[in-house]
Amino acid sequence: MTKTNAGRFFEDYAVGDVITHAVPRTVSGGESALYHALYPARGALHSSDEFARACGLPASPVDDLITFHTVFGKTVPDVSLNAIANLGYAEGRWLHPVYPGDTLTSMSEVIGVKENSNATSGVVWVRTTGRNQHGKDVLSYVRWVMVRKRGSGPAPQAVVPELRKTVEAADLVIPQGLRFDGYDFALAGEPHCIGDYKVGEVIDHVDGVTIEEAEHMLATRLWQNTAKVHFDATNRADGKRLIYGGHVISLARALSFNGLANAQMIVALNGGAHANPCFAGDTVRAWSEVLDIAPTAVDSIGAIRLRLVATKGQAGVLRGADGKYDPDVLLDLDYWALMPV
Amino acid sequence: MTKTNAGRFFEDYAVGDVITHAVPRTVSGGESALYHALYPARGALHSSDEFARACGLPASPVDDLITFHTVFGKTVPDVSLNAIANLGYAEGRWLHPVYPGDTLTSMSEVIGVKENSNATSGVVWVRTTGRNQHGKDVLSYVRWVMVRKRGSGPAPQAVVPELRKTVEAADLVIPQGLRFDGYDFALAGEPHCIGDYKVGEVIDHVDGVTIEEAEHMLATRLWQNTAKVHFDATNRADGKRLIYGGHVISLARALSFNGLANAQMIVALNGGAHANPCFAGDTVRAWSEVLDIAPTAVDSIGAIRLRLVATKGQAGVLRGADGKYDPDVLLDLDYWALMPV
Amino acid sequence: MTKTNAGRFFEDYAVGDVITHAVPRTVSGGESALYHALYPARGALHSSDEFARACGLPASPVDDLITFHTVFGKTVPDVSLNAIANLGYAEGRWLHPVYPGDTLTSMSEVIGVKENSNATSGVVWVRTTGRNQHGKDVLSYVRWVMVRKRGSGPAPQAVVPELRKTVEAADLVIPQGLRFDGYDFALAGEPHCIGDYKVGEVIDHVDGVTIEEAEHMLATRLWQNTAKVHFDATNRADGKRLIYGGHVISLARALSFNGLANAQMIVALNGGAHANPCFAGDTVRAWSEVLDIAPTAVDSIGAIRLRLVATKGQAGVLRGADGKYDPDVLLDLDYWALMPV
Repeated sequence: MTKTNAGRFFEDYAVGDVITHAVPRTVSGGESALYHALYPARGALHSSDEFARACGLPASPVDDLITFHTVFGKTVPDVSLNAIANLGYAEGRWLHPVYPGDTLTSMSEVIGVKENSNATSGVVWVRTTGRNQHGKDVLSYVRWVMVRKRGSGPAPQAVVPELRKTVEAADLVIPQGLRFDGYDFALAGEPHCIGDYKVGEVIDHVDGVTIEEAEHMLATRLWQNTAKVHFDATNRADGKRLIYGGHVISLARALSFNGLANAQMIVALNGGAHANPCFAGDTVRAWSEVLDIAPTAVDSIGAIRLRLVATKGQAGVLRGADGKYDPDVLLDLDYWALMPV
Repeated sequence: MTKTNAGRFFEDYAVGDVITHAVPRTVSGGESALYHALYPARGALHSSDEFARACGLPASPVDDLITFHTVFGKTVPDVSLNAIANLGYAEGRWLHPVYPGDTLTSMSEVIGVKENSNATSGVVWVRTTGRNQHGKDVLSYVRWVMVRKRGSGPAPQAVVPELRKTVEAADLVIPQGLRFDGYDFALAGEPHCIGDYKVGEVIDHVDGVTIEEAEHMLATRLWQNTAKVHFDATNRADGKRLIYGGHVISLARALSFNGLANAQMIVALNGGAHANPCFAGDTVRAWSEVLDIAPTAVDSIGAIRLRLVATKGQAGVLRGADGKYDPDVLLDLDYWALMPV
Repeated sequence: MTKTNAGRFFEDYAVGDVITHAVPRTVSGGESALYHALYPARGALHSSDEFARACGLPASPVDDLITFHTVFGKTVPDVSLNAIANLGYAEGRWLHPVYPGDTLTSMSEVIGVKENSNATSGVVWVRTTGRNQHGKDVLSYVRWVMVRKRGSGPAPQAVVPELRKTVEAADLVIPQGLRFDGYDFALAGEPHCIGDYKVGEVIDHVDGVTIEEAEHMLATRLWQNTAKVHFDATNRADGKRLIYGGHVISLARALSFNGLANAQMIVALNGGAHANPCFAGDTVRAWSEVLDIAPTAVDSIGAIRLRLVATKGQAGVLRGADGKYDPDVLLDLDYWALMPV
């Protein structure tokens, strides 16, 4: 009897299956401190209990991406250990803030399977939900990955879920009590409210950060993400360790403070592509494009939909004339954040 | 008057001496978060307050090896600053879990001295005890080291303590309240209870981690271990920094989750050898052998005695035909852990 | 309308201006754990709640330099983003300890401006104050920097503040309740009380630490210091990242434990020069000189004024025959600390 986890293969997923992911995790001020050490994160709501209280929350919640990475990390042994590629995200919604002391668990429902025409792999869609110790859902998102087949059995009936291109503004969940009517723009770092932004506006976030091996491994382990490609330099012929895509997401989001300091909370993930691999030594820059602006159920809070692009060269590039991502593009992420009106 | 600590030499130890080690340390969620960032640790009991409560504990204790490293680190300025070699461990027992907020102090009693035949060094045995702020012992173990002599004085009378080859199962301390009768195997990550393991069984833990300089130094400093060989690249002719043996212990133990996810708590250290030095750039793998299985005083909890071997090449190797450790072997550790029946 | 912060130029400072710096920060046990992982810090008062309580404080305060770096970091986007050089510090005083859970904000008053004769830059003096969530000042210091001019307008009237060469011993603030009459020298790590030190005494702190890129970047980000020179390897022609001067301060201060273990709290910063730049790969050593000794308002507590010098070669060097700093000198810091009588 083999004791170790060999990971699931394409045949091991059936639509309707619910997978309880292992290793619940209690987050503390330690995770938050490490997040601030790993990324140049400066969002005031995630930095200061006092600022968060002035915005109607009981304390400063952990960064929205700590929630994402923690929930995501638990899915890796069950969903992506034998994955060939992480294909996409959709319908991601943050449903409740996470505070130091909270314990997160993660589960996924298989919502789609489709074998590839080569019959050696297939695509699996899962809807993953993170939950806190009170049984309250804190995050939900759909991810689809390409997974190897174990054998040469017949293809299952293809089920391809219909996914929304974007989360509707009306479906965004505003954390209970949150309000931006007494918002302190000076302490937050920038004077721009949502009315200062226009759809189509592009912001170069100026700064660049050169990544070290120790940093991305510390981060990836912190989320208990076990994918060996991130840690084992003997895994690839070129001796490189592939950087967890979420490390690039957090880095780019933190860099976007410079120009988007008041995009305080991420409330939805509409989609995202890890366009090219990232390695230690790359200098990551970021730029954003305003895709949409919408009111929310709370008068003082607006929703801003942003495209966040991380590059390893100059900011600004996205796709070539052929429609393909520029080789310098690492990440193309589409998300909603909350901003004072 | 010299203000700095030159460390003790062989002559400075006499059997019966009790040394109070300096710098008590309060641990917090920060140490636990860092531990999870530094090692791929996924043991559920040390990861989740909720899981620990379901097992009868008041909260998630810090990793058993945080306790070990913190207690051990304090002994370095008094015991191993002038050590030539760390020779062995015996009779290690964890006596009480450590929780965030606890303050640890450390003291050692000299229990043996024996001058070497070369008359320039000798072996010192100490029994080290870690204690929390309530005066409760949390850990006790014997360590022996080879230490330089300062001068050429006569040899002291040799006292060699009799040490048990292994801690008896009957002497293992089960943390008060701990029980595994409602144990959630799905959340813990593997379905194997102690009955699924057999004495002699060998488990390859599959994954490898390539070590960076920044990581082992962060870890070693966190335990306030001051041995200069770990930090100063000018200390050796080859410019290498020797990695703290405890870093390899923690790395190997964390890797052993894959196959031993339910070996939840370390309760005894029977022995251990740092077989070869470890340096940044090494890719560490691990394998385990089941040495013994025993019941405990609590029906739902069994004790499993494990050999944990860390290698810098492929897992599986141990000794050559000559009985010497394979050059790839970094660590050979013998410990008891608790597992659901 | 540009959304990003281009930083202030010399023309943007007028004497009397008060700048509220952005991004308040709540510190936790996480910051303290990271501090101990980043630096070989062993001061007992900052390591143990129990030790701090025995000295009359309610708990272990965060390291005095966590307070400094956190307050300083907030000033960077407003004061030193376009700085050519950090010229000096004066009149620094720690006014109240900072505990996990406290939230720090930072503000600066412009107290001096003087255009350089080249008319392309000028010197700006600011007095920066850090404040906790109760509105209590925790730290105040003067810093002056050389800043680029944006244009070619006329020079403002020069105002050069008169600054004290050193904070008077009588002006040192002893934290409320602090007393060293039951001080445990064994737990603190060294037996030397203030009477054991003499003005003019020089202490070589023996140990060296070789710095890694990941470490100084983790530290600098933790203080939310955004200066791009520390993070972006493409910023300089030689591909080097300039290490935040505060990283060297913390490293040297932590190394000084060996010989100054009882210099428990920093209460004043009299002055300081970052004599030469520091880069990853440098091995940092430190030495101290006792500059002054004075009583304080509390009988059991003395004040010791120390010069702390960090070097990248052997300790001991300071200036050449020409009066210039030796090329190996990284830091020359002048501060007051509290020590048991």
